Amino acid sequence: MFTHRRFKFCPNCGAAVDYRVPADDNRARATCDACSSIHYENPINVVGTLPVWGEQVLLCRRAIEPRHGFWTLPAGFLELGESCADGALRETDEEAGAQIELQPLYTLMNVLRVGQIHLYYRARLLSPTFNPGPETLEARLFHEHEVPWEELAFRTVRETLQRFFEDRRLGRPFELYCANIE
Amino acid sequence: MFTHRRFKFCPNCGAAVDYRVPADDNRARATCDACSSIHYENPINVVGTLPVWGEQVLLCRRAIEPRHGFWTLPAGFLELGESCADGALRETDEEAGAQIELQPLYTLMNVLRVGQIHLYYRARLLSPTFNPGPETLEARLFHEHEVPWEELAFRTVRETLQRFFEDRRLGRPFELYCANIE
Ligand SMILES: [Zn+2]
Ligand SMILES: [Zn+2]
Repeated sequence: MFTHRRFKFCPNCGAAVDYRVPADDNRARATCDACSSIHYENPINVVGTLPVWGEQVLLCRRAIEPRHGFWTLPAGFLELGESCADGALRETDEEAGAQIELQPLYTLMNVLRVGQIHLYYRARLLSPTFNPGPETLEARLFHEHEVPWEELAFRTVRETLQRFFEDRRLGRPFELYCANIE
Repeated sequence: MFTHRRFKFCPNCGAAVDYRVPADDNRARATCDACSSIHYENPINVVGTLPVWGEQVLLCRRAIEPRHGFWTLPAGFLELGESCADGALRETDEEAGAQIELQPLYTLMNVLRVGQIHLYYRARLLSPTFNPGPETLEARLFHEHEVPWEELAFRTVRETLQRFFEDRRLGRPFELYCANIE
C-alpha cells in the first residue's frame, strides 16, 4: 500500500496540516483546520512511446537521475492541459529528437508502489536519425537481440519491450496490454 | 490551456511559493525559495465502468455536487496504491453497490480544461439488483431508447455511452476509444 504523505503544510493558507479521515471518506487526507480545506493526492501519469524503425526499436540512455546511464523508452510526466497522446509525442521529441507517427496506446501499467500509471504508445519512426535533448546521453536503434535487458531503467520499459517482441514473434495484433507492477 | 495554480504556499515548509519557470524546464512551477523545492501539478485520473445487463446499461443519479441530480456512469478519482481496474471496481461498488465482472478498458478521454483523464471499463453485471451508496440517489438499468441524454452529468459519460451503442449496433468489436474533450 502506497502511503506517501506529500503535504506537511496547507498549500492554500500555509498552516500545518493533519492527516485524518474526513467524514464520509475512508482514507486519511491532508486536512487543514485553519482554512477548512482537504488536499488529495492521486497517482500521476507517465506517458511515452515505443518507436519502431523496421525491425529495430529506439532506446535512450538517461542523462538524469533516477537511473542515470540506464536505457529507457522516451517517456515523462503528463502535463496539465495536454492529452496523453500529445504528452507521449512531446517526450519523444524532447528526449530523443525523434520524428514519429503515433500509433495506438499499447501498454497501461499501474506502478503501485510509486503511485504512477505508465502509458506507452506504439510509434512509427519517420527517420532513423535522432537529436537527443539534455536528459539523454545517447539515442539509438536496437535489434531485439541487442537490447540491453540488464541495463533497462524501469520495469515498465522491460514489460513493454517484452510484450512487443512477443506479439511480433507470434504474429499477434498489438492489443492494449494492462498490468500491475507491485 | 489549463492554467490552474493549486499552490499558494509550500506544502513542504509553509512559505509562500512563486510560480516561475525553473532552469532546464519550460513551464511555470510552484517554486519555494525557502526550502528550494518545486511542486508539480499533473492531470488526475477518474476511473469508472459501463455496467451492462443484457440490453441494458446501469446509470446512477448523483446525490452530490457537481451535477447533483444528473445521471452518470459509476466513476471517481483513482486513489494512491490502487490500479485503474481496482479503482473502477471500487467506484462501481461504492456508487451503485453493483456486482460486476470487469471487462477490458473501453474509453480513455482527456478532459483538458479540468486536467483530468477519464478511463471507463466495460463491465458485465452479475445481478440486476443494486445497493447505491450515499453519493447516489438512485441506480437503475436503461435500455438505449430510455437513456436520459439531456440529463447526463458529464460529456465523457455521454461519449462512452454513444460509442457503446454505436459499436453494438454496428456489430463492431469494443475496441479502446481515445478522445479529447476540450
Ligand atoms: Zn489551509
Ligand atoms: Zn518550501
